[in-house]
Amino acid sequence: MADVSRTALNTITTHRQWNLAQAVEGCLRHGLKGITPWCFQLKEMGSKQAVKLLRDSGLTITGLCGAGMLTGPDQATRRALLDTHYQAIDHAAEMGAACLVLVVGGLPDGSKDLAGARRQVRDALGQLVPRAQAAGVALALEPLHPMYAATTACINSLSQANDLCDELGDGLGIALDVYHVWWDPQLEQEIQRAGADRLLAFHVCDWLENTRDLAFDRGMMGDGVIDLKQIRRWMELAGYQGCYEVEIFSQQDWWERDGDEVLSIMKRRIASRL
Amino acid sequence: MADVSRTALNTITTHRQWNLAQAVEGCLRHGLKGITPWCFQLKEMGSKQAVKLLRDSGLTITGLCGAGMLTGPDQATRRALLDTHYQAIDHAAEMGAACLVLVVGGLPDGSKDLAGARRQVRDALGQLVPRAQAAGVALALEPLHPMYAATTACINSLSQANDLCDELGDGLGIALDVYHVWWDPQLEQEIQRAGADRLLAFHVCDWLENTRDLAFDRGMMGDGVIDLKQIRRWMELAGYQGCYEVEIFSQQDWWERDGDEVLSIMKRRIASRL
Repeated sequence: MADVSRTALNTITTHRQWNLAQAVEGCLRHGLKGITPWCFQLKEMGSKQAVKLLRDSGLTITGLCGAGMLTGPDQATRRALLDTHYQAIDHAAEMGAACLVLVVGGLPDGSKDLAGARRQVRDALGQLVPRAQAAGVALALEPLHPMYAATTACINSLSQANDLCDELGDGLGIALDVYHVWWDPQLEQEIQRAGADRLLAFHVCDWLENTRDLAFDRGMMGDGVIDLKQIRRWMELAGYQGCYEVEIFSQQDWWERDGDEVLSIMKRRIASRL
Repeated sequence: MADVSRTALNTITTHRQWNLAQAVEGCLRHGLKGITPWCFQLKEMGSKQAVKLLRDSGLTITGLCGAGMLTGPDQATRRALLDTHYQAIDHAAEMGAACLVLVVGGLPDGSKDLAGARRQVRDALGQLVPRAQAAGVALALEPLHPMYAATTACINSLSQANDLCDELGDGLGIALDVYHVWWDPQLEQEIQRAGADRLLAFHVCDWLENTRDLAFDRGMMGDGVIDLKQIRRWMELAGYQGCYEVEIFSQQDWWERDGDEVLSIMKRRIASRL
């Protein structure tokens, strides 16, 4: 059984209901262990104040999300995207986040060159890794579902992420989200291959059989088809000891509910369905 | 440049506009080489009459689609699904189809056992292959995009399909659809691995950057982000010499247009974008 005391809230799950301060309060009120804020929320509150709020909250900061993409149509754009990531690395360091989660970007506008986009990602990671290491921040590469290859991230399997970790060495790990990888026939072996050192974050939600939208229709754990218990076992057999971070994009359901209701159900589902 | 004289119509592309007889007429009127009918259209017309119409049309029957799934909640269901496939094998043989295309099915209702569904597929293929070989019909396993793993097909990469071909031996090949595999970092090498003997069908359309629906929002070649020319080159370097079969599911666009307009544009796009 999953240990409910390891539950964390990825703040996207409640971003419609709660700003960052309210999310921190909600996590504390519900006795959650961790929180994963997004960069846009830091900006909303003012990053200095947000960093202080998070650092002083007593919550584990399981990651910082939403630093943006790494792919772009030209060098100047990519340079600016790197700068945004350097800033996010600094924020992650200041708040003591366990990692900076990287959603690496899809095809630049008008491009069909997927292999080229993937080379851009590798090159950008080559720049980011030493910078993050110097700041004492782990980078967590998140492979995204293949349906996001064009728009959001051209790293689309755990195998690809592991290959990049092999190539780029220490300082680069992985954020595993069940939504993106549950279909992968190589999942068990690639989790083993990643091992405890690389498995920096574990995002949970569910894949709804009748998914109505590519981006914003994820389910609460137990409402879909993913064998969550099996994936959690694989993660823990590989040595993962971190939080279970609930990240749900849900335009028509969970983003419409009361935040406290969402957190209560999250905890129950972590206990019973993960 | 793609050879437009190898264009074929997968009849799902015009199934709203045209019944099977109209689709055959349309293909002949536009000088297409081939047609790929669906089982539901055989049923609509009466399979005997439909088979005769297709066989006598002079068109290459590049495949027969829509025989149904192979996964099911219990043995009786799976037995009935096999029987449906035996019948489709007979129809494919009678009309002289180049292959029977297999979309293997996803998770049985209420199941989260993806590995189990995949075993069901392997076992069913073990039954189908000898039967198809005896009938002189090639089976073309179609790996589907991972976003269909739950609902439609649990074979989600060309690598998986190649593994099944290795395991089950002669009589089993592959239908490659760009929509399902374009994102795969292993695509080039897995096309080479498949080789001419296995590459039985080549389905083309495009992935729209702003995809509005998981099932019914495919694009016309050139309207999306897939590097179609590169995938065609890989197919042809591997020895593929068959038709370019246009299969577009498009609730809000191509299914709403005049059938002749669709075929005219198809041909222009095959010539310029493939």
